[in-house]
Amino acid sequence: MTFRPYFSGRNKRSKNHTMSFRIEKDTMGPVEVPADKYWGAQTQRSINNFKIGGERNRMPIEIIRAFAILKKSAALANAELGVLAQDKADIIAKVCDEILAGQHDDQFPLVIWQTGSGTQSNMNTNEVIAYRAHVLLGGSLEDAKKLIHPNDDVNKSQSSNDTFPTAMHIAAYKMVVETTIPGVEKLRDTLKAKSEAFMDVVKIGRTHFMDATPLTLGQEFSGYVAQLDHGLKALKNTLPHLSELALGGTAVGTGLNTPKGYAELVAKKIAEFSGQPMITAPNKFEALAAHDAIVETHGALKQLAVSLMKIANDIRMLSSGPRSGIGEILIPENEPGSSIMPGKVNPTQVEAMTMVAAQVMGNDVAITVGGSNGHFELNVFKPMIIANFLQSARLIGDACVSFNDNCAIGIEPNTPFIKKHLENSLMLVTALNPHIGYENAAAIAKKAHKEGTSLREAALALGLLTNEQFDQWVRPEDMIGSLK
Amino acid sequence: MTFRPYFSGRNKRSKNHTMSFRIEKDTMGPVEVPADKYWGAQTQRSINNFKIGGERNRMPIEIIRAFAILKKSAALANAELGVLAQDKADIIAKVCDEILAGQHDDQFPLVIWQTGSGTQSNMNTNEVIAYRAHVLLGGSLEDAKKLIHPNDDVNKSQSSNDTFPTAMHIAAYKMVVETTIPGVEKLRDTLKAKSEAFMDVVKIGRTHFMDATPLTLGQEFSGYVAQLDHGLKALKNTLPHLSELALGGTAVGTGLNTPKGYAELVAKKIAEFSGQPMITAPNKFEALAAHDAIVETHGALKQLAVSLMKIANDIRMLSSGPRSGIGEILIPENEPGSSIMPGKVNPTQVEAMTMVAAQVMGNDVAITVGGSNGHFELNVFKPMIIANFLQSARLIGDACVSFNDNCAIGIEPNTPFIKKHLENSLMLVTALNPHIGYENAAAIAKKAHKEGTSLREAALALGLLTNEQFDQWVRPEDMIGSLK
Amino acid sequence: MTFRPYFSGRNKRSKNHTMSFRIEKDTMGPVEVPADKYWGAQTQRSINNFKIGGERNRMPIEIIRAFAILKKSAALANAELGVLAQDKADIIAKVCDEILAGQHDDQFPLVIWQTGSGTQSNMNTNEVIAYRAHVLLGGSLEDAKKLIHPNDDVNKSQSSNDTFPTAMHIAAYKMVVETTIPGVEKLRDTLKAKSEAFMDVVKIGRTHFMDATPLTLGQEFSGYVAQLDHGLKALKNTLPHLSELALGGTAVGTGLNTPKGYAELVAKKIAEFSGQPMITAPNKFEALAAHDAIVETHGALKQLAVSLMKIANDIRMLSSGPRSGIGEILIPENEPGSSIMPGKVNPTQVEAMTMVAAQVMGNDVAITVGGSNGHFELNVFKPMIIANFLQSARLIGDACVSFNDNCAIGIEPNTPFIKKHLENSLMLVTALNPHIGYENAAAIAKKAHKEGTSLREAALALGLLTNEQFDQWVRPEDMIGSLK
Amino acid sequence: MTFRPYFSGRNKRSKNHTMSFRIEKDTMGPVEVPADKYWGAQTQRSINNFKIGGERNRMPIEIIRAFAILKKSAALANAELGVLAQDKADIIAKVCDEILAGQHDDQFPLVIWQTGSGTQSNMNTNEVIAYRAHVLLGGSLEDAKKLIHPNDDVNKSQSSNDTFPTAMHIAAYKMVVETTIPGVEKLRDTLKAKSEAFMDVVKIGRTHFMDATPLTLGQEFSGYVAQLDHGLKALKNTLPHLSELALGGTAVGTGLNTPKGYAELVAKKIAEFSGQPMITAPNKFEALAAHDAIVETHGALKQLAVSLMKIANDIRMLSSGPRSGIGEILIPENEPGSSIMPGKVNPTQVEAMTMVAAQVMGNDVAITVGGSNGHFELNVFKPMIIANFLQSARLIGDACVSFNDNCAIGIEPNTPFIKKHLENSLMLVTALNPHIGYENAAAIAKKAHKEGTSLREAALALGLLTNEQFDQWVRPEDMIGSLK
Repeated sequence: MTFRPYFSGRNKRSKNHTMSFRIEKDTMGPVEVPADKYWGAQTQRSINNFKIGGERNRMPIEIIRAFAILKKSAALANAELGVLAQDKADIIAKVCDEILAGQHDDQFPLVIWQTGSGTQSNMNTNEVIAYRAHVLLGGSLEDAKKLIHPNDDVNKSQSSNDTFPTAMHIAAYKMVVETTIPGVEKLRDTLKAKSEAFMDVVKIGRTHFMDATPLTLGQEFSGYVAQLDHGLKALKNTLPHLSELALGGTAVGTGLNTPKGYAELVAKKIAEFSGQPMITAPNKFEALAAHDAIVETHGALKQLAVSLMKIANDIRMLSSGPRSGIGEILIPENEPGSSIMPGKVNPTQVEAMTMVAAQVMGNDVAITVGGSNGHFELNVFKPMIIANFLQSARLIGDACVSFNDNCAIGIEPNTPFIKKHLENSLMLVTALNPHIGYENAAAIAKKAHKEGTSLREAALALGLLTNEQFDQWVRPEDMIGSLK
Repeated sequence: MTFRPYFSGRNKRSKNHTMSFRIEKDTMGPVEVPADKYWGAQTQRSINNFKIGGERNRMPIEIIRAFAILKKSAALANAELGVLAQDKADIIAKVCDEILAGQHDDQFPLVIWQTGSGTQSNMNTNEVIAYRAHVLLGGSLEDAKKLIHPNDDVNKSQSSNDTFPTAMHIAAYKMVVETTIPGVEKLRDTLKAKSEAFMDVVKIGRTHFMDATPLTLGQEFSGYVAQLDHGLKALKNTLPHLSELALGGTAVGTGLNTPKGYAELVAKKIAEFSGQPMITAPNKFEALAAHDAIVETHGALKQLAVSLMKIANDIRMLSSGPRSGIGEILIPENEPGSSIMPGKVNPTQVEAMTMVAAQVMGNDVAITVGGSNGHFELNVFKPMIIANFLQSARLIGDACVSFNDNCAIGIEPNTPFIKKHLENSLMLVTALNPHIGYENAAAIAKKAHKEGTSLREAALALGLLTNEQFDQWVRPEDMIGSLK
Repeated sequence: MTFRPYFSGRNKRSKNHTMSFRIEKDTMGPVEVPADKYWGAQTQRSINNFKIGGERNRMPIEIIRAFAILKKSAALANAELGVLAQDKADIIAKVCDEILAGQHDDQFPLVIWQTGSGTQSNMNTNEVIAYRAHVLLGGSLEDAKKLIHPNDDVNKSQSSNDTFPTAMHIAAYKMVVETTIPGVEKLRDTLKAKSEAFMDVVKIGRTHFMDATPLTLGQEFSGYVAQLDHGLKALKNTLPHLSELALGGTAVGTGLNTPKGYAELVAKKIAEFSGQPMITAPNKFEALAAHDAIVETHGALKQLAVSLMKIANDIRMLSSGPRSGIGEILIPENEPGSSIMPGKVNPTQVEAMTMVAAQVMGNDVAITVGGSNGHFELNVFKPMIIANFLQSARLIGDACVSFNDNCAIGIEPNTPFIKKHLENSLMLVTALNPHIGYENAAAIAKKAHKEGTSLREAALALGLLTNEQFDQWVRPEDMIGSLK
Repeated sequence: MTFRPYFSGRNKRSKNHTMSFRIEKDTMGPVEVPADKYWGAQTQRSINNFKIGGERNRMPIEIIRAFAILKKSAALANAELGVLAQDKADIIAKVCDEILAGQHDDQFPLVIWQTGSGTQSNMNTNEVIAYRAHVLLGGSLEDAKKLIHPNDDVNKSQSSNDTFPTAMHIAAYKMVVETTIPGVEKLRDTLKAKSEAFMDVVKIGRTHFMDATPLTLGQEFSGYVAQLDHGLKALKNTLPHLSELALGGTAVGTGLNTPKGYAELVAKKIAEFSGQPMITAPNKFEALAAHDAIVETHGALKQLAVSLMKIANDIRMLSSGPRSGIGEILIPENEPGSSIMPGKVNPTQVEAMTMVAAQVMGNDVAITVGGSNGHFELNVFKPMIIANFLQSARLIGDACVSFNDNCAIGIEPNTPFIKKHLENSLMLVTALNPHIGYENAAAIAKKAHKEGTSLREAALALGLLTNEQFDQWVRPEDMIGSLK
């Protein structure tokens, strides 16, 4: 039996055509590069030297897009400050727009597991921009000398050490603001609406997973809303730190080789092109050597994961059954249950959500380990850190939308179960204390528990009150405090 | 209002008497030491310089005891190899026996948060042994020169760098073998007995927290037994690595300043005095620079924590109720529930167990971070690593015994709930397929689910079979496979 | 050889006197309680049923103190709202003041590993307050009926479910504000002063742990200051959530059995007695069922741990040597190095700090796991969560003070090493580009690297510039940007 | 500026052609499926309902391949046991071989974040096999009824609940045995060869990151070899648990609806087709409800990550420089350093390796959280758990090969630095103790340290010995113990 080697990634598509190559050179000599690719020698060396993890582990496309914003901003700032010709800046910006439009996604083949500064992805971007610009300007990829230089032009006033963390913050900020927050807010709003809709549905409470005094289903859901509100607030609290950009620090944070005013100007342009309120970092040394901003924001993502795990677990358990569980809510049926057992609705959205939560908890540790291991002027766990961050931020946003649309929005109380549990509850006996005294009330509860009957049955059997008195005095709806 | 400063530990005992001091000297000059304490200058400097965490964070007593075994073994081995006078070895051994008998616990005041090699606790031990020996030999603590020297005699043929990891392994091995494994085995044996006792109790199964096809309560418990059996096997697999001792490596692993044959001889003595099969590490460089053996064994403890979390959660949920939960098992009532609500038994042992499991999962990360951050010839996260390890190993052992004695041993099936859930289950309709066909069976299930009736009621209402046929065909006890 | 069983904690003090007992009763019957202890039956049952972890694992004293604030506040609020007699409130408050003054620390023997709601520690507090009050009022512990009732009086308008989380927030808030923040700020201020003092000390930079372009030692330290500033800001951002108190929610969050206005009034009193701006939680359901506030604040503590790990590692590496390391800074010598090797100063404070950082990272996972596993109306990982939190918060504060006082404050540049590294650096050749051209500059660098000489030697040997020109052009102090 | 929405994955390729659809039906009604795809309604519903994470988060191809082995094995076992027609089994096996040959990778579009039992990927496999078989048998995808049924034929004697964990074990076992172990062994062998080659290279040791007594570079490397040997042993210890297959347990572990002898027979076939010694799990309840085997093996992967982090960090630091670091080894130059600074070799392979190690540590927590949260008869974190496992197992294997080929294999001692550090070391003074006495030796060391001179210079200046005596007595090569 042929078993394809595990190393091969999925979706390999290039194997069926004969690959042709051109030669690119760098200071270490010539390298064979696929003839139709815009990248150059340094990208190719990374492909050759880091065969780790396969296609699934590519540098996230969001980082490539963030680099495009960055390179465009840097080129235009350089031109404005007089250190780069305007026509060079314009053609660089044009290629960046192409990248942002998704035209060159297949030009960024490098994996996360490369140099920890992300230098090779910075060079990948520089090379693709320079060589694509060269072609746009009428040149050929075979030309030994290109009209735009990856280092001297595209990377001008930059170092990998300040560009990569800048791209990290751009991509992270955008993901949080454009995907995570809207996703969580969507779910929060639905749960809020459910909380209001269910505010009068009195049901049994549970503490220690055991029957307790009643509350309303709306109150129960209001706790979820409060969790998400707090989580969103915590997440937003972290955004100012995340908005700080390292760009302008160059190699070690001193800004060597940058024109005066560059850091502020390039941050302004990045803010404009990204649509987010990015600013230049007050301290560039921190911005290169540490990723505490990422650690901070991911801490808030982890907090949301903790909240979502709790909420999803509750919904899983509240909807359990259909016969032999708790069964107090109904969730939408999205997939065929067994053809034999109608009514078996697996809480699949809950399961996706709780898996996402577990993943985010794990990612938090990976980021913690990476974030704490910077040395001197540079942290070299950058690609790993941002890959985990972007996964978490997107997964939370996506999972909230999926959970919202396919589950939360359709949650309804399962009135018969709610009523049955409430009526059966021995805890309601508390309400009799003022009328017949604690001793008599306790006697009722003990009898009901021992004999497995209802409180009403036990009370009537003991002759301690009438059926009408029971109705009048045992009113769970009076045990739930003021609703809010 | 007076609020005592948080820094003060609990159980401070020295504040009420006037402290008197003597002067001890080391190469940095004189230090004031409490007059009645056996420790010397280096211990006192650590007290003065590491005011971190308070009394609760003291070096675990198990490490002190392990040091006593080690120092006794080293002294006797040194005497046997002719590098220490026999009478010096004998008095050192005598003091070590006193420490092992618990006579000097208050002589070891240092906290975990000291130098990462544990040097200061090694010196604490050396000083206490030397000065106590001096007193036993008739000297006074006020004598400037003691008859036994902490370094030259007690620490002979040793370095902090090989003694501390040796003490770690002695303490860890003993804790695992004497506390963890017996505790887990005790619980495992009880669950095994329950599994056998409950092997014929047919009940509904649950997947996705939803009703599924039946199994027996004994089968369910057999899964728990299999988890613990696998966990114990995994734990025992790690013991050979843990039995390797660094002693004999001295400062960097080369064994500088040790007599020939020392490493093997001292390991033999440690094995004898500890009662455990300890051996000398084949590679001393690894034994100083890494703590992979601790990482490995704690990995198995974490696996047990994962298993125990699952088992305890199941028992929490199976015993939930008493009215509005799943309620298929009864657990012992150990504390008064509410005086109002007889029958509310909170699963408190489950809660202690799951908190322990969470703690062990956290400790695993602390050990992982510490274990991965050794540099060159020495890992300097030693006290933190072993403190977390010992906590995990003891907590798992203790919690298993507590859970066993106060919960597992008293678990009984709650037959009425088990029967009710089983009889209500729509899933049993599967059994009708061979008799009335899939279409008819599905029609029954759908009707029952829609109308909230039993399968029997629906089947009879549809006229598809008789009451007797239902009894004959719908037999959960035939759906549970061969019992084991 | 006698080896004391591991189960016995250290510091056992009761074994030498004969214990006498009295009988206390609860609804489950009589229990033997030590005759001289204030606690009652429920505390004793917890001692008997939870033999897990020993003395080292006792409920943190900060929680006991927080309970004293809480119980005093509740008693006075109850009196003010007319549901408790004023004289009862007064005697309860008096005992609480005694507890706050540290008079009764030995009355709180319970361990963390008890019921996950902390009910037993709540009852321990109720019992000790009631029985001590009884004695203060002239009664005897032997009296079957006490003048103050643990439940009816001390626990009035409360449930374990809202008191324990309230005590958690009080203790956590105080620890963060009184220990963590001042400790971090102290270290931050020292590093800031060092940054300013070292602002002109030009030195080599390092990226990828490799030589890079220069910066100043002050710039390097400014990055540490920025990290701690961000960390402090992140920590303070979490305080509003942490200031929210569950009290007033009682059993499930509805506030059953509390007088009108109670939640707000008791929060006001807690704010007064704790000296912290505590408020009543807007949503009590969240406050009982989740501990996201603790998760949130601990996330910030973990961020600080990440920062401190990086800073401490840098200081460890910068001070390495004394001969064969990097050696660019000198740190204080606090303990004798080897008597043979003067000048060997082990970075022991760094080691304590990095161990603390690893511990906090582990604690974060324990809290994450516990925080995410609440069910319905109650999270039952409360004691574990708060024990980890308090340890982290205190360790960071203590370790920062210790590191500050015994290390940071004495850091000085090691000028000879700094100069030697700077002068040797091949990277300075960059400065020659404008004067002799890139090709010539590269030739110098290559020759120097190959032959192991200085740039100056290589330049002079190649005859490309004069000694004076080298002095004039190669000026690291011009490569460090504008200082800040 | 157009910024493509983040949601869109990279490498979207279908957008340029007009998609045509066919209609597939299941019990919930009709669904539109792309006309050219083999999958059916249930796969499509998962695509529609779980838009989480995008293409990057697809179910790992290794799971698809493992499913192909499983489905082929099950079909042939079913045929052999007489419950499936042989021709049906044969065509199913044929399609499975196509899948194993990589012909249908694009037919498996589902993401990890689906139902936690992996049901939808099981159905994806069933549907693709059935419909492809139908086409191979001459049918058309448009046919309403297919000749092979996804459930009745392909899924015969199976449930998602036992197939998915079986696929997990097949894929995990293969990845560990075929990728992880060979990768680690390759690196281990190279380090072993280096250790032997460097066994006589005497160099300074370092403890606490500070100069210490000497050892050889070969001894230092022998510690790394010992770490990997222990790690490999630990990993192999876990394989028996991992070889246990859930298949045969069906829905809840009882084996409902499987023919007699099926579990053993299908395990035998899986062993044959996978080439690995897989066996049927003795306890199927554990095999469905828990993933302790995965937790156990990943614990060993994490241990390897801890070891690799230490080893890689050492190599990073030992190779630091080229001028101002420790610089005792040289590593291969794989990418151009700065054109200005020849000799700057960034340890890029170290950086990839340490990022991988951090990732594995994070993955371990994700797996721990998922593994501990099973309920009753099923753990529903399966896809998340296996995705993290496969990533870790592959990354460690790949990274070891990459690190080996591009770094370890080229490591050489940097003799000048090694000699300089060794000769400068003050620690060597220890060797003079027997000849001139401790006091005189200490005087030499103190003078040398204070004045920054060599020991030799200080000794000669003090007139305590001759140049020849220094050569004769101070011999680091005598301080390194017996070499091994």
